[in-house]
Amino acid sequence: MLTELKREAYEANLALPRHGLINLTFGNASALDRARGIFAIKPSGVEYAALRAAQMVLVDLEGRVVEGRLRPSSDTATHRRLFLAFPEVGGVVHTHSTHATAFAQAGRSIPIFGTTHADYFAGDIPVTRKLTTGEIRGEYEWETGNVIVERFAAGNLDPLDFPAVLVNRHAPFTWGPTVARAVEVAVAVECIAQMALASLQLHPALRSIEPALLAKHFKRKHGPGAYYGQDSARRKS
Amino acid sequence: MLTELKREAYEANLALPRHGLINLTFGNASALDRARGIFAIKPSGVEYAALRAAQMVLVDLEGRVVEGRLRPSSDTATHRRLFLAFPEVGGVVHTHSTHATAFAQAGRSIPIFGTTHADYFAGDIPVTRKLTTGEIRGEYEWETGNVIVERFAAGNLDPLDFPAVLVNRHAPFTWGPTVARAVEVAVAVECIAQMALASLQLHPALRSIEPALLAKHFKRKHGPGAYYGQDSARRKS
Amino acid sequence: MLTELKREAYEANLALPRHGLINLTFGNASALDRARGIFAIKPSGVEYAALRAAQMVLVDLEGRVVEGRLRPSSDTATHRRLFLAFPEVGGVVHTHSTHATAFAQAGRSIPIFGTTHADYFAGDIPVTRKLTTGEIRGEYEWETGNVIVERFAAGNLDPLDFPAVLVNRHAPFTWGPTVARAVEVAVAVECIAQMALASLQLHPALRSIEPALLAKHFKRKHGPGAYYGQDSARRKS
Amino acid sequence: MLTELKREAYEANLALPRHGLINLTFGNASALDRARGIFAIKPSGVEYAALRAAQMVLVDLEGRVVEGRLRPSSDTATHRRLFLAFPEVGGVVHTHSTHATAFAQAGRSIPIFGTTHADYFAGDIPVTRKLTTGEIRGEYEWETGNVIVERFAAGNLDPLDFPAVLVNRHAPFTWGPTVARAVEVAVAVECIAQMALASLQLHPALRSIEPALLAKHFKRKHGPGAYYGQDSARRKS
Repeated sequence: MLTELKREAYEANLALPRHGLINLTFGNASALDRARGIFAIKPSGVEYAALRAAQMVLVDLEGRVVEGRLRPSSDTATHRRLFLAFPEVGGVVHTHSTHATAFAQAGRSIPIFGTTHADYFAGDIPVTRKLTTGEIRGEYEWETGNVIVERFAAGNLDPLDFPAVLVNRHAPFTWGPTVARAVEVAVAVECIAQMALASLQLHPALRSIEPALLAKHFKRKHGPGAYYGQDSARRKS
Repeated sequence: MLTELKREAYEANLALPRHGLINLTFGNASALDRARGIFAIKPSGVEYAALRAAQMVLVDLEGRVVEGRLRPSSDTATHRRLFLAFPEVGGVVHTHSTHATAFAQAGRSIPIFGTTHADYFAGDIPVTRKLTTGEIRGEYEWETGNVIVERFAAGNLDPLDFPAVLVNRHAPFTWGPTVARAVEVAVAVECIAQMALASLQLHPALRSIEPALLAKHFKRKHGPGAYYGQDSARRKS
Repeated sequence: MLTELKREAYEANLALPRHGLINLTFGNASALDRARGIFAIKPSGVEYAALRAAQMVLVDLEGRVVEGRLRPSSDTATHRRLFLAFPEVGGVVHTHSTHATAFAQAGRSIPIFGTTHADYFAGDIPVTRKLTTGEIRGEYEWETGNVIVERFAAGNLDPLDFPAVLVNRHAPFTWGPTVARAVEVAVAVECIAQMALASLQLHPALRSIEPALLAKHFKRKHGPGAYYGQDSARRKS
Repeated sequence: MLTELKREAYEANLALPRHGLINLTFGNASALDRARGIFAIKPSGVEYAALRAAQMVLVDLEGRVVEGRLRPSSDTATHRRLFLAFPEVGGVVHTHSTHATAFAQAGRSIPIFGTTHADYFAGDIPVTRKLTTGEIRGEYEWETGNVIVERFAAGNLDPLDFPAVLVNRHAPFTWGPTVARAVEVAVAVECIAQMALASLQLHPALRSIEPALLAKHFKRKHGPGAYYGQDSARRKS
């Protein structure tokens, strides 16, 4: 069932260690078939070297396992929360990539210091508030999704203009119209975080880029005026 | 004799340079058969590229070489001290991985700044005191084991809740129920150390994570309530 | 048409991710046939793994696509501006390599701290001023070339003595008599930037090297007195 | 002529990029046949990928090319100066490895902060004084050797107890009884430098290790009491 969806999720999961974003089993990727309300996600704790496409677990948007003999990722409820809140999102990726996680642990958003960042984000990469003790002791992974959704609502942020978040004390989540795009954003977020740390070391009081440059670069790649790539419109389609 | 134990130790030793934890011959791994009181350990100073499973040296818990034509690792007495003190440990790994060693050289424990760390440790990764001149000039490697054991006794730390230590001025040792798990922890310790250094660069006064978050993540993976992976109980079995 | 030129540009583009200078599609390389006034450049947004030599787009120095079914790199106008302003340049490379981009984002030139740097540059690697809002909203990529040209005119810098620039808030561009040389300089710039950041961390008030040492190293490799390599004169031919 | 010596030098040169110590052509290795007073060294400016063992250039200790169609490394006179001054040295390696070069550029010796360092050096890795303008304009590469020799004479340092130096504003040179050992030391120096920088970031006022620990680790691997490896005496033979 949904062989193609499982393959898409599988390929995305394998791409994470290949891009150096994941050590051991610190991460997961999922792909959603929104029409059916079912997503394919990595089984929990299985090593990437041993993973097979057929092992992807199918889960519906109510959180029920639809197919699969293995237990789904322990972060499944966070993915599900994001799919429910963000109707244009078709794939979610979670990593503990080194520099992005360092910002998350420090509780700092990643300031937008250059055009690399502006090619992917319409501003700083946001960080959530910390979870409360009650949220941690309750439905922890679902509540992790909730603080992300709360952060986007409070900042009035469009999830496709800001396709990533840092969960405070934890690590990044990224997303996109497809899971392949969410993987691409995860690679970009780690690059951006490493450059931002080095820029801060060179200039501790560095300020964000000017709004005109931000708008220019972001719109080169996104929206009706995009002119980057061979079919720029696909970026948001 | 004990071909499977030697293979287990051999595979663990080979995994260390593959994970980027070791340059040259800076490290070693050992696997214990506790029923027989014998462990297999890397021969001293042999390059990883040239290593063969049959070259693993078998040593008993009194420190006598039981089998093997090569001299065992110069750190053998440290491994032996840990096997004697920590009855649930079946494998020990020693590396000089870059960022973990930087903390050890600086004489600092690694503060628990995020969930990556909490997935493996029930708190900060401890650092030992420095060895005295007498300990250094005496049975140095045995005394290195002793300061580790002393640190765990003084802090009332369970070695499976804190499966690594930084030896002051030296480098990390890690362990686990199996040597494969000790390798996994060695990978995690290096990741955690690199993230912690970067987090401190972003926020020099950063404090440890809240107890509830620590407990949640550690218990997701360890103990009776664990729900990470396909067979969570194995982690401590 | 111009199969060899397209192959040269293609090989240069492939070298960028191989040297770790580029993630995703963050960069591009072009090769010029100055006699014909035509250059070959990477098509926009095509992944390196899928790139083929025949896909290189041929563009003339007036900016017209001469051959090619794909849209050329969105940075084409910057390349073209440099070819027009710098008559000895036959190849241009643009990357977002991590440490060089960190200097660009911080708006800092890279000070010349050692002989590695002096082997390639006759002084600091310059940084441009920021673009004005008008320049950003106008012909952005052409204006990016203009601020580079302005910086070289203002500093009276010879583009072959200073074969790279950091565009403020953006990233490095490098060049040379051939695109292969521009790739080599891009590798050197990233090395130099990483070393300079680490040198500043060790000695925040570090000053540039002495003029005699700069002259010695630069002239070992460049100009009539060069004695490095097997045919030193080629470096500037 | 001296096919084995050329192969030894060739293998050492190839090992440098494989260990990540060299980008482009920033480095060279040489092997000496002291009985004949001839050493084999890399030809100048040849890329590692294209290098062949037969291209190694044979040079005698008076600096005359004895065999070889290519020009020897531009650093040949530095190698020759070291072979003449240090009678127990049989191989010399020069790299611009990132972190060791950062210390050299900053004009700082590398303090001995831990046992990794003490396994290879009997103290800090020394840095030379800067060359004078006269030395730079004169026989530059020979004078580079001279400031190294001067540093060792002034500090009364045994070159086998301190098998590396940082040339101020330039980069490291390493050596050993064989060129293979000089390569191993070059790998160690880069590791040690990276760890030392990170240790200083964690503890800016960090002091060197205690003399007893230094003596213990250095003597584990060197001299009559060595007990590391399978044939510890070879290290200094």
